[in-house]
Amino acid sequence: MCTNCDHTIHRHQHHFGWNNAFEPVARVAPGSTIEFECLDASGGHYTPQSTVEDMKTADFDRINPVNGPIHVEGAEPGDALKITIEGFQPSGFGWTANIPGFGLLAEDFPDPALHIWKYDPSGLEPALFGKNARVPLKPFAGTLGCAPAAPGHHSIVPPRNVGGNLDIRDLSAGTVLYLPVEIAGALFSVGDTHAAQGDGEVCGTAIESPMNAVLTLDLVKDARLKMPRFTTPGPVTRHLDAKGYEVTTGVGPDLMTGAKEAVRQMVDLLAGRYQMDPVEAYMLASTCADLRISEIVDAPNWVVSFYFPRCVFE
Amino acid sequence: MCTNCDHTIHRHQHHFGWNNAFEPVARVAPGSTIEFECLDASGGHYTPQSTVEDMKTADFDRINPVNGPIHVEGAEPGDALKITIEGFQPSGFGWTANIPGFGLLAEDFPDPALHIWKYDPSGLEPALFGKNARVPLKPFAGTLGCAPAAPGHHSIVPPRNVGGNLDIRDLSAGTVLYLPVEIAGALFSVGDTHAAQGDGEVCGTAIESPMNAVLTLDLVKDARLKMPRFTTPGPVTRHLDAKGYEVTTGVGPDLMTGAKEAVRQMVDLLAGRYQMDPVEAYMLASTCADLRISEIVDAPNWVVSFYFPRCVFE
Repeated sequence: MCTNCDHTIHRHQHHFGWNNAFEPVARVAPGSTIEFECLDASGGHYTPQSTVEDMKTADFDRINPVNGPIHVEGAEPGDALKITIEGFQPSGFGWTANIPGFGLLAEDFPDPALHIWKYDPSGLEPALFGKNARVPLKPFAGTLGCAPAAPGHHSIVPPRNVGGNLDIRDLSAGTVLYLPVEIAGALFSVGDTHAAQGDGEVCGTAIESPMNAVLTLDLVKDARLKMPRFTTPGPVTRHLDAKGYEVTTGVGPDLMTGAKEAVRQMVDLLAGRYQMDPVEAYMLASTCADLRISEIVDAPNWVVSFYFPRCVFE
Repeated sequence: MCTNCDHTIHRHQHHFGWNNAFEPVARVAPGSTIEFECLDASGGHYTPQSTVEDMKTADFDRINPVNGPIHVEGAEPGDALKITIEGFQPSGFGWTANIPGFGLLAEDFPDPALHIWKYDPSGLEPALFGKNARVPLKPFAGTLGCAPAAPGHHSIVPPRNVGGNLDIRDLSAGTVLYLPVEIAGALFSVGDTHAAQGDGEVCGTAIESPMNAVLTLDLVKDARLKMPRFTTPGPVTRHLDAKGYEVTTGVGPDLMTGAKEAVRQMVDLLAGRYQMDPVEAYMLASTCADLRISEIVDAPNWVVSFYFPRCVFE
């Protein structure tokens, strides 16, 4: 538990979707450090005993609960909320799913699939997947956002200029994130904690895992930030890169098509080389492989590359 | 010079564009190691004394000469050409340009700009840009390709399924690249050597630099590869990542727009923080900052992030 926290936001203090009319669960001074007891993106629907059968009863209207909102005193439209990500207390339980209709290759993988993870919450040793894949862990929060100025209820799924479901895997311990403030008090919420994810989150889910998150909230007055930005205190891929990468590419005039092509070829490569079911390869890659834009200027064709860390199998 | 090479392809043995009717400059056995004396992408137009005035006389029809083509004995359509990138002998001279009408932010930067680099070709110490930016170097070849099956002349600019102007910055020493073969003999060529580049090559040019490249060409029979793929022997960003990153994002429903937005904000951040001309910040970022797709599944909005390595200024 957090010994230096000014506030604790408990598991039940969460909401679904964004709405700037939600009542704050706490009002805090700038500089406050807060512990958030985050649920996983299923809101506790999945347990260590879950099977793919349990996907039938998952309620998509109640996905991705976020703890908050927090009213930060003095925050005004035009300011930036400065969020120092102090750390996480992971639970040791996680899940990864292929949800029909969701994910980069939804058309290739129409059937539900669920993988349950058990990992070492204190040592964070690489987590076993199947017989011999081991995924390095780096906990982070997938969703950190301020309430949008636009009135009414907004889906939790898409990220937006004020943040939200960003799913940026480097929003981990030590990173400082800046979000535009559009509402007095900012109305910040956080959730959707992940034990690991690759850039892209290609199958639509990461290692979804409940965990406590400790954040310090502060303000940068009149920052006039347009979009989220962040600073990392050090390297971001050293948990993954020691053995290098297998890399597939998608070359063509559309970045989305290129990304799909690169991921398809990696699924084929992994499934063939390691005798994996393709949907397993797809889910595994979602937790550890990175989508990069290698080249975006040699018109009319761009190159999207998908980097799978070789340490997972070596 | 290469002491273990079976062949040397000299500076004048180059061609412009792709055409499977070009006569091979050499016929080599699979497993041959070859030294290529690569020109820079301007074909020697720029020199250490060049200024922006020299951009007026650059001939866009004669850009990006590539050495070759090499006929690899026994290569047939359906095979993969396996290219082991043995190493580079850099020249110490380079250039980076903003070419009007070219580059990710062509609409923002309509005026020509040229930066001339002088770098340490043996020690590869980070290269000075302006007063206090230092860019870590990692030489690679921007263009490696086989001749396309489609007859006639094809522009050198866009990469394609058989490779070409891939501009993937990890095609550096130690990497093994596989390219689809579409023509008997493969007809491989290489050029467009770079001393450093970030993922995306956002301004359209890297540290363009003539250098010798040593490659071993081999075959994987009947590989039925669709697109280029490669394997790296180890980490790919450790020359850049020690001090972490400043990261800007573009959040929205189009990856291209998101990439532009992320790069624009980084240009603003660097120009403001370090009192740089925006076009200088744009060119600097092109040589060292990485475009990544952080999230591509939370419909309808994706997140493209632009990672600028803090070591450049620290």
